[in-house]
Amino acid sequence: MTLLTLLDFGAVLIFALTGALVASRAQLDLVGFAFVACLTAVGGGTVRDLLLNRDPVFWIGAPSYILLATAAAIVVFFTAHLVESRYRWLLWLDSFALSIAVAAGAGVAMQLDQPPVIVALMGVTTGCMGGLMRDVVVGEVPLVLKHGELYATAALAGALTAQVVATAGAGSYAALPAGAAVCWALRAGSLAFGWSLPAYKSRPPRH
Amino acid sequence: MTLLTLLDFGAVLIFALTGALVASRAQLDLVGFAFVACLTAVGGGTVRDLLLNRDPVFWIGAPSYILLATAAAIVVFFTAHLVESRYRWLLWLDSFALSIAVAAGAGVAMQLDQPPVIVALMGVTTGCMGGLMRDVVVGEVPLVLKHGELYATAALAGALTAQVVATAGAGSYAALPAGAAVCWALRAGSLAFGWSLPAYKSRPPRH
Amino acid sequence: MTLLTLLDFGAVLIFALTGALVASRAQLDLVGFAFVACLTAVGGGTVRDLLLNRDPVFWIGAPSYILLATAAAIVVFFTAHLVESRYRWLLWLDSFALSIAVAAGAGVAMQLDQPPVIVALMGVTTGCMGGLMRDVVVGEVPLVLKHGELYATAALAGALTAQVVATAGAGSYAALPAGAAVCWALRAGSLAFGWSLPAYKSRPPRH
Repeated sequence: MTLLTLLDFGAVLIFALTGALVASRAQLDLVGFAFVACLTAVGGGTVRDLLLNRDPVFWIGAPSYILLATAAAIVVFFTAHLVESRYRWLLWLDSFALSIAVAAGAGVAMQLDQPPVIVALMGVTTGCMGGLMRDVVVGEVPLVLKHGELYATAALAGALTAQVVATAGAGSYAALPAGAAVCWALRAGSLAFGWSLPAYKSRPPRH
Repeated sequence: MTLLTLLDFGAVLIFALTGALVASRAQLDLVGFAFVACLTAVGGGTVRDLLLNRDPVFWIGAPSYILLATAAAIVVFFTAHLVESRYRWLLWLDSFALSIAVAAGAGVAMQLDQPPVIVALMGVTTGCMGGLMRDVVVGEVPLVLKHGELYATAALAGALTAQVVATAGAGSYAALPAGAAVCWALRAGSLAFGWSLPAYKSRPPRH
Repeated sequence: MTLLTLLDFGAVLIFALTGALVASRAQLDLVGFAFVACLTAVGGGTVRDLLLNRDPVFWIGAPSYILLATAAAIVVFFTAHLVESRYRWLLWLDSFALSIAVAAGAGVAMQLDQPPVIVALMGVTTGCMGGLMRDVVVGEVPLVLKHGELYATAALAGALTAQVVATAGAGSYAALPAGAAVCWALRAGSLAFGWSLPAYKSRPPRH
């Protein structure tokens, strides 16, 4: 199993857990859990693979991704009531899934010798699109658009880090974990300590 | 005309009617009706074809799908006011479109010799994605996420039925209608009699 | 630079401005601005290219599209507070982006010798999908579904105009600007003078 495959599996598993947690908030049945879990789990990587015209899309060539996401949904269905604060779990699991998926997306683009701009974009896309679909489908404000939080910023920083470390001559076994770590550190700092970039503030028109 | 083509036409026609009914609830004009009708009609099959890398996408190779969906939108534009309960019509038409599209999706995947997991997923995807786009775009809770109803479950059961009947040696002329029938029976039972699977219920934390 | 490339660049730039304006209404940070701007800017053309199986998708083959959209987002981030009515700007910029993108979509489909139905659909898709994604993601009613306005109608009229002018023997340098002009005239008339088509009105059931 290559590092890229491992990252895809990691992102699928953890994103599936977040999708199932969202399904629990919507009180769906077991198949509904699996539906939202699979959509969230493979959404970002699917957009990446369609954009890069990879054939087949990663989970169609290897159905075990879907089985893994479904298993995660089943576990959450039977255990989510044991958890004190499902929303906190959702946020933190999402931060791990985001970071791993950013590395997976950047890694795939680098493997295909894409230019740095596309590497950065594929990292952000793979990281953010699954969660975005999850949130749009259930009608919540997407985490990536929550104001006053680092999310797209963390994803971009992670993808750029992976690119820079790889360009510096390190192999992908160093570059991709470094990118994931930077992404997660920023996102976790935002969740735990309120780190943020200055947000746009409209000012009253001048006289 | 093959069975798969026939199923695609059937799903397109009926999904287009549901899209146009949703457009009537949003009081759009005739072109708006056609827009939502086409999006709903070809949405699920388009996702299926992109994922399976079929070239061309089914309706791009045969524009009559779009003409059919547009004709359906026009008919609804001029007749929907004659209908007593547009929402009941929407639900029941959607149940037929779902069932036919599930069979169409599973059938295409089987024809491409995909493994059972992918056959099941393509059935669910083709069945659910058009209606999901329709509902997300107009800002309603997607039918597939309505709690206490069989929807994704009906789609999954239909796709699995088609797979099992085909594996048992029956041709697709038996397998696909059987899958559609099972899907529709479950969805109709849910609409008419409130059939459902146990939904997730959060329980108060233990002491 | 060909006319089609020029149209794609124009649509990307102006759609990016609208995306950034929407980001300003959601009070995102600078990277959030760039995220929504890029999604809006390349969304429609990406759907077009995936549907037509163009490889690579236009902005993956030429990352300068992304840099342009990002630059537009940065400019809006630092200047939007100078603007009196951001929503009016959003509407009018969107009308230009829509018109240019309709021409770009129809032009690409004509270049690929697609039949007229697909040319029309690709014009509408390229024009409407980026803005639709922008509005869905932030949870607003998509402009294309606003009742009592010409939007999909303007897009369709523009795409059909381009097709008719091209069929009449004019080159694309006449056909595509003509299509964009017709689209924009209708959309602008709707914004400025309230032009609209009769909308669906449900009537009470007859006795």
